[in-house]
Amino acid sequence: MQLQVGTTRIAKETRRSPHVVILVHCPDEVGLIYRITGVLASQQLNIESNQEFVDVTTSHFFFRAEVSLKTCCSAESIAQLKNALVHNLPERANIRIVACEPRPIVICATQEPHCLGELLLLDAVGELPGRIVAVISNHNTLRNLVERFDVPFHLVSHDEISREEHEQHVAELIDTYMPETIVLARYMRVLTNNFVDRYSGKIINIHHSFLPAFVGASPYRQAFERGVKVIGATAHYVTAELDAGPIIAQDVIPVDHGFTAEQMAQAGRDVEKIVLAKAVRLVLEDRVFVHSGRSVVFS
Amino acid sequence: MQLQVGTTRIAKETRRSPHVVILVHCPDEVGLIYRITGVLASQQLNIESNQEFVDVTTSHFFFRAEVSLKTCCSAESIAQLKNALVHNLPERANIRIVACEPRPIVICATQEPHCLGELLLLDAVGELPGRIVAVISNHNTLRNLVERFDVPFHLVSHDEISREEHEQHVAELIDTYMPETIVLARYMRVLTNNFVDRYSGKIINIHHSFLPAFVGASPYRQAFERGVKVIGATAHYVTAELDAGPIIAQDVIPVDHGFTAEQMAQAGRDVEKIVLAKAVRLVLEDRVFVHSGRSVVFS
Amino acid sequence: MQLQVGTTRIAKETRRSPHVVILVHCPDEVGLIYRITGVLASQQLNIESNQEFVDVTTSHFFFRAEVSLKTCCSAESIAQLKNALVHNLPERANIRIVACEPRPIVICATQEPHCLGELLLLDAVGELPGRIVAVISNHNTLRNLVERFDVPFHLVSHDEISREEHEQHVAELIDTYMPETIVLARYMRVLTNNFVDRYSGKIINIHHSFLPAFVGASPYRQAFERGVKVIGATAHYVTAELDAGPIIAQDVIPVDHGFTAEQMAQAGRDVEKIVLAKAVRLVLEDRVFVHSGRSVVFS
Amino acid sequence: MQLQVGTTRIAKETRRSPHVVILVHCPDEVGLIYRITGVLASQQLNIESNQEFVDVTTSHFFFRAEVSLKTCCSAESIAQLKNALVHNLPERANIRIVACEPRPIVICATQEPHCLGELLLLDAVGELPGRIVAVISNHNTLRNLVERFDVPFHLVSHDEISREEHEQHVAELIDTYMPETIVLARYMRVLTNNFVDRYSGKIINIHHSFLPAFVGASPYRQAFERGVKVIGATAHYVTAELDAGPIIAQDVIPVDHGFTAEQMAQAGRDVEKIVLAKAVRLVLEDRVFVHSGRSVVFS
Repeated sequence: MQLQVGTTRIAKETRRSPHVVILVHCPDEVGLIYRITGVLASQQLNIESNQEFVDVTTSHFFFRAEVSLKTCCSAESIAQLKNALVHNLPERANIRIVACEPRPIVICATQEPHCLGELLLLDAVGELPGRIVAVISNHNTLRNLVERFDVPFHLVSHDEISREEHEQHVAELIDTYMPETIVLARYMRVLTNNFVDRYSGKIINIHHSFLPAFVGASPYRQAFERGVKVIGATAHYVTAELDAGPIIAQDVIPVDHGFTAEQMAQAGRDVEKIVLAKAVRLVLEDRVFVHSGRSVVFS
Repeated sequence: MQLQVGTTRIAKETRRSPHVVILVHCPDEVGLIYRITGVLASQQLNIESNQEFVDVTTSHFFFRAEVSLKTCCSAESIAQLKNALVHNLPERANIRIVACEPRPIVICATQEPHCLGELLLLDAVGELPGRIVAVISNHNTLRNLVERFDVPFHLVSHDEISREEHEQHVAELIDTYMPETIVLARYMRVLTNNFVDRYSGKIINIHHSFLPAFVGASPYRQAFERGVKVIGATAHYVTAELDAGPIIAQDVIPVDHGFTAEQMAQAGRDVEKIVLAKAVRLVLEDRVFVHSGRSVVFS
Repeated sequence: MQLQVGTTRIAKETRRSPHVVILVHCPDEVGLIYRITGVLASQQLNIESNQEFVDVTTSHFFFRAEVSLKTCCSAESIAQLKNALVHNLPERANIRIVACEPRPIVICATQEPHCLGELLLLDAVGELPGRIVAVISNHNTLRNLVERFDVPFHLVSHDEISREEHEQHVAELIDTYMPETIVLARYMRVLTNNFVDRYSGKIINIHHSFLPAFVGASPYRQAFERGVKVIGATAHYVTAELDAGPIIAQDVIPVDHGFTAEQMAQAGRDVEKIVLAKAVRLVLEDRVFVHSGRSVVFS
Repeated sequence: MQLQVGTTRIAKETRRSPHVVILVHCPDEVGLIYRITGVLASQQLNIESNQEFVDVTTSHFFFRAEVSLKTCCSAESIAQLKNALVHNLPERANIRIVACEPRPIVICATQEPHCLGELLLLDAVGELPGRIVAVISNHNTLRNLVERFDVPFHLVSHDEISREEHEQHVAELIDTYMPETIVLARYMRVLTNNFVDRYSGKIINIHHSFLPAFVGASPYRQAFERGVKVIGATAHYVTAELDAGPIIAQDVIPVDHGFTAEQMAQAGRDVEKIVLAKAVRLVLEDRVFVHSGRSVVFS
């Protein structure tokens, strides 16, 4: 990215540089925070903020802390910290320590520009805590938009090949970028379980929906016909069951009877892009846990 | 109602007294507003506000006006105005003129006090543009709450009688009050088509729901498990198809992973009572049209 | 309160009974959570939820935990726990342990019923984590409303006495109830610094406001004239400087040009009552810290 | 603009092409709608939607209609329609008929990219009912961003020249584009009355604000210190009195004590860009009236 937006971009990097994020989750037991914070205290590390949550229904413990480092976060110092945590926490504890550099994401899109454009713009102006390394699409429609932002655009056409073959091409391309997160920004392809499993816990999707839901075709038509007053959007992790993965962010936008089907669709696009941007930021800042199919979001 | 809350109650009645509301809907054609406003102009009536909407997909015309009267609104002057409108509008036009006195409503409830209490309180403090003339319940739980507001409470137990018999008792009781609107304030009984038909277009229901919807039992359990971020509520007219009637009002309330099932349920109750109160106000101010199963709300 | 609302009231008490809330705040230093949780672990107490926050600008530490007890929370066991915390935390640490019974609040009101009514109703239906023990007013207008809920109503007229004398009467009355929280539910009296100091950190106020603010008289008139699109409400602790105390809760309600001054005022009342109820719940659940004039709300 | 976004752009133009918007405002009198709709009926024009509002406090009448044309909207047919309206309405009536082509806007910005980027993106993807013909800035920071969208970027430095001289240069540049609307997208320059008068009723500004307002320097600092829970943004027309012009759109975004000053600022930027985009759309669709310093928005 060559875009110079001066102070904003710099501000972002300054703000994040001297931190690591520590993520722990495991079955709950007495004294977990005591042991985690004991390790940090013994290493003279200061907790700038932390959030902790015990899901009492599953007795599962979730912990996130931002810790300021005195020096830059070397691989070595992180390994040392992780080691100390591993030795002091239960064997089953899931421990992650995330350093401070912005992480790569790949976006898959089809023909709609609203969600993709919002993410490209946020990255360009320094308000995305990550960087978009590539956009993959099964159509050429969005190439021009993507290339304006100096981001590689890859067309992987689905013409005359099977779903499995197409996914195979997409997956190979994704893997060359080694992203931690894959964002489906209105990617209008049904994914196979194979693909979902390959990137388990890494794919984020966005879709609009209504209160209550409309089953069957033409949801905007049905929404219009019943006179809905809000349109919602849900960003979630993708799992094998369609649209049933753990929820990361949701919001709604008000509409009324005066909205045509087209205007309702525009309201739907507006709320989709706002919610997807929020979800991507939360994920890139390591604020989202998923355990037993449920999300815990420390916003 | 004996409750003296001084200026508020008076203010409400003062504000509404010199108006009538004119409601017209019919298939659209050129010149409808011209003809309606021509009648009003010829009678020297001043339009204080009006709203008009043409549903272009069904070519249907909707019109609502608040018209200030010089003198009080006698039955005679209303009949005269209606007559003039009938003569100047298409034969198929549906014309309603509503005078200014607060209209009676009957509430059906079961055991939950939140929606019922909100409506009783709004009526008591003069912020409901109607008056609650009776509460009917299949349990005795809410008697004490209702009687505090000097509103008649009727227990119609469903013990040892059929659904049809129970509904028959409820309907007979409702009819003694001749309400124009029946509000189901968490009335936990499935209604027969017979009952719904008998009060067609008069019954308002409230229910919470989620984005997207959860099918099957224990929706709060499912909502909790997927980590939903908003809980919504929908107030709608009751039609034969369960929860599929025209929507009057909707809103959502934010929640997060830290909400227990019980706290989610409380958030659901909070948004239900706010949305139901809004819908009842809209209906009592004659701001809601229903045509071809669709609502048009001039809020 | 005699009101029987069955399961709801019971549910509330059941839910809260086996907890204490632990509140700690002090200048930040390394290892605070380690020491707090060490005390809890040594007493075999399980943290059901906790929230922690370090205000990095003032280097101040805030901590709240809900801890489940094995037996009921006796004064003795609480004293023992407090003792252990005092011995393990810095001398300057502010430590509070709050047992589980609902605490008394006194409401001061003048003539407007909307905020007062909402709180009375929430208490009556078991959705207020406290109990209203008295209402004090300088007018008789609201007596009937209050007495419907079997809550003592006290008229303290301000006629022919000085502001100081009136406040003295009110304060004596308040003190007979020993409330921990005094809610000004549209109490239209200017308070002296004397009164504010006497109940320092205990008085909650509500007021509406606009974006941006309107200085001078008739704010609704000014709001109407500029065409504001939202009306907000702020619930805050009362300090010597008028309306400048730490904020507990805020929200807004949408309006438009079609709202008359009276309808804007009603929207203002609606948002006031929702925000005040939210703030009172937060305070009664001990979720609000105030330090150096700033609020930290663990919602 | 060369950006190909396929169906979206086409959809927009299709939707708008066969309409004109008719705007009328004047002192209220009986029969105004009757006369307007009479003209439309006599020309066999069909009203697709209309909104009407009488400000009863000033007795002023506002009317907006979207009228579908059978053929394309020639200058001649528009002149004819206007003529007919002029002949049938009071002499003082303000009548505007707006044809369907997207109208030019010029954006002034300084160094912040968030509002500018949002508008550029909406235009690029076909969701702005107008087109950005130029961006003018007193810094070079945003050039790269603007040129990515193939929009002319003009640097007008304020170095070593007076405020009046700088404004003169800016105004000359603006005038070469003959825009109907000038958007200040975080343009950090105080405008002279001269400049404001020159573009009276054409300049839109955006700013964030708080509930209640904070006077003096460092509002985010003050907001942080009082623990505000929402940050608002207001888009308004610019008038001589700073930030006191008629309001077009407003909204708020929730924040909490955990937001640093920088994070509050980011939330402020997020809500600013959403509200500004909404306001610009409303203005470009001719949904905003200003009369006697007050806005009426037919959304």
